[in-house]
Amino acid sequence: MTQALLIVAHGSRREASNQEVRQLTERVRVRAGPLYSEVACAFLELAEPSILEGIHNCIANGADHLLVLPYFLSAGRHVSQDIPKILARAREIYPGVVIDLAPYLGAADAIPELLLTVAEQQGC
Amino acid sequence: MTQALLIVAHGSRREASNQEVRQLTERVRVRAGPLYSEVACAFLELAEPSILEGIHNCIANGADHLLVLPYFLSAGRHVSQDIPKILARAREIYPGVVIDLAPYLGAADAIPELLLTVAEQQGC
Repeated sequence: MTQALLIVAHGSRREASNQEVRQLTERVRVRAGPLYSEVACAFLELAEPSILEGIHNCIANGADHLLVLPYFLSAGRHVSQDIPKILARAREIYPGVVIDLAPYLGAADAIPELLLTVAEQQGC
Repeated sequence: MTQALLIVAHGSRREASNQEVRQLTERVRVRAGPLYSEVACAFLELAEPSILEGIHNCIANGADHLLVLPYFLSAGRHVSQDIPKILARAREIYPGVVIDLAPYLGAADAIPELLLTVAEQQGC
C-alpha cells in the first residue's frame, strides 16, 4: 500500500494565504517520515491544484491509498457536503484507489490546548 | 491584573458552526485554570457577540487586560486588517484597559504535528 496525505484548504484570492498552505504542507512533509509516500495540498476553490487535480497527481505519483484531510476549523457546508461530493466523484474515476476522508482540523481534541499554548506564548 | 481571553472567530450563517465555537470556548475555559478570569468568544461578523461587544462584556465582568486570539487558519485580510482595526477602536473606547492581540491559530508551531496526529487517528 502506498499512501499519500492530501491536505485540502479552502483557497483564497490572496495568494499569500495559498502560499501559507503550501509552506505548511512542506512542514508536514518534513515531519511525516516514511508513513506517507507523498504529502500534498489542494484547494476547494480559488487556487490550484483543485482537489480532483491533487488526487490525480498523488495517484500519478504512485499512491493507491489517499487520506484527505480538510484544513478547516468548522464543519460548514464545505466540510460536510462539498468535499465529500468531490471525493465520491474521485472514487468513481479511480475505483482501484482507496480514498479516505479524515476529520477536519477543528475537530481535533488538541485544539483547546493549542489555543491556550498560543495565548501563553503571547505572554499575557 | 485581571485577564480575560477572548477567542475571535469569523462567524457563520450556519448557526451550528457558531455553536461549535461556543462549545470550543467552553472546553478552553475548563482547561484554562486560574490564569484567566474569563474565557469568552466573539465573532467578526454574522454572529453575536461582535468583537466590540465581547470586549465590553469582559471589561464589564472585571477584566483590565484582554488577550484577543484569532481563531483563523490564515493571515488574510480579517486577521491582518479587520481585527486590528476593531482592537484599535476598542483601545480608544477603553483607554484604561490593556488589549493585546495574540497570533492567529494557524501560525502556531504545533499545527503540522497536529495535522499528522489527526491523520494518524484516522488509521490510514
